[in-house]
Amino acid sequence: MVFRYQDACDDVGSKAVLVIDTLRATSTLAQMLANGASAVLPVADLALAYRFKADDPEIVLAGERDNVPPPGFDGGNSPADYPPEKVQGRRVVMTTTNGTQAITRVKDAPWLGTAALVNARAGAQGQMATGRDGLIVCAGTRGRISLDDVLAAGAVVSYWPQAAWTDAARLAYLTFAHYEGNLSEGLSAADHGRQLQDMGLAEDIAWCAGLNRLSIVPVRQANGWFSAPG
Amino acid sequence: MVFRYQDACDDVGSKAVLVIDTLRATSTLAQMLANGASAVLPVADLALAYRFKADDPEIVLAGERDNVPPPGFDGGNSPADYPPEKVQGRRVVMTTTNGTQAITRVKDAPWLGTAALVNARAGAQGQMATGRDGLIVCAGTRGRISLDDVLAAGAVVSYWPQAAWTDAARLAYLTFAHYEGNLSEGLSAADHGRQLQDMGLAEDIAWCAGLNRLSIVPVRQANGWFSAPG
Repeated sequence: MVFRYQDACDDVGSKAVLVIDTLRATSTLAQMLANGASAVLPVADLALAYRFKADDPEIVLAGERDNVPPPGFDGGNSPADYPPEKVQGRRVVMTTTNGTQAITRVKDAPWLGTAALVNARAGAQGQMATGRDGLIVCAGTRGRISLDDVLAAGAVVSYWPQAAWTDAARLAYLTFAHYEGNLSEGLSAADHGRQLQDMGLAEDIAWCAGLNRLSIVPVRQANGWFSAPG
Repeated sequence: MVFRYQDACDDVGSKAVLVIDTLRATSTLAQMLANGASAVLPVADLALAYRFKADDPEIVLAGERDNVPPPGFDGGNSPADYPPEKVQGRRVVMTTTNGTQAITRVKDAPWLGTAALVNARAGAQGQMATGRDGLIVCAGTRGRISLDDVLAAGAVVSYWPQAAWTDAARLAYLTFAHYEGNLSEGLSAADHGRQLQDMGLAEDIAWCAGLNRLSIVPVRQANGWFSAPG
């Protein structure tokens, strides 16, 4: 068994892949499903998102460009935008800057889930339960390593047996261990975290720092939509 | 000013780039120059290395494939292989698995130096003295992130003002800070470090863990060879 993250050269063809975009796409995705959304489809293209809504007005449109919701969207990229009364029993189409692109990069994986600090344990358990090699892909921010994602990757890593750790896993775990007592501080130390704070989104950061507050893992189904098994 | 490491997407055209391959290429390269070698040329191709030697028998051939010196080489990738009596006043052609390839990737940089734990401060000072944006490239091991390189990157980062740190710099610094009291332990925790230990090369690890034992920074000159300015 091997365990790696953010190795663009990796062949994902046989692996159980977890995509992490802690601030905020994969945190919000997990919250939507926890609040009763029937399924969530991450799409890279804004025009495609609008087309889903045109075909089915019951679809919830979610996401951001430059951290704010595009015109006509039902909510942004904030977990607070999707309470049960908005998403219960509905399908959500989601488009975000970094997370969606990371998911697209690993679309050939035989098992594809998402994780964040809020569901790190459930993510690791879902990944391990497949019996496959594990790969964690950190979405990063505009192609760069993002501290917030590595922090969440370290939380996931902490539930894997150490014998399976690669150097990348060890580095992620060190980051998590350093900030474990104050995960909000860790998220706020990240470039992207500071940017969100400057935009008045400190509450989102505090929510996203809630380790294992959700016990579900969004997993891609055969039709391409993500839902929470069990 | 920005500060990053190991972002393959980065344009290096205007940056002061430091390449790090702590175990062992950039540690050994610094030692060769500190011991009086006149210049060192890293080459990717084994055949090219042999051609230099054929043209000039005074050339010292250095390097490894699978951690051992190729046939006919004057030494391997161990710093202990290059005492003053072997390299004083001589030119060295060096070929290694990971370090040479990393140097090739960033060959378009206007300033190109190498660093390791043994010359982290000199590397940072040389890089900062250029007044350019800094970029650290960790060679890694067969395309993967290597804990030993991130550790050395964190040491270099520690000499830069924090205002210049990116998330990648922060992560490297956290790793360095964690192992600062026992850098040998950090190197030995790396996959590549364990591999070297299993090969009986523990003394190399101990030597490479000697923070700032050398005060020179190898810098590429106009002719492509590396030497230590000043």
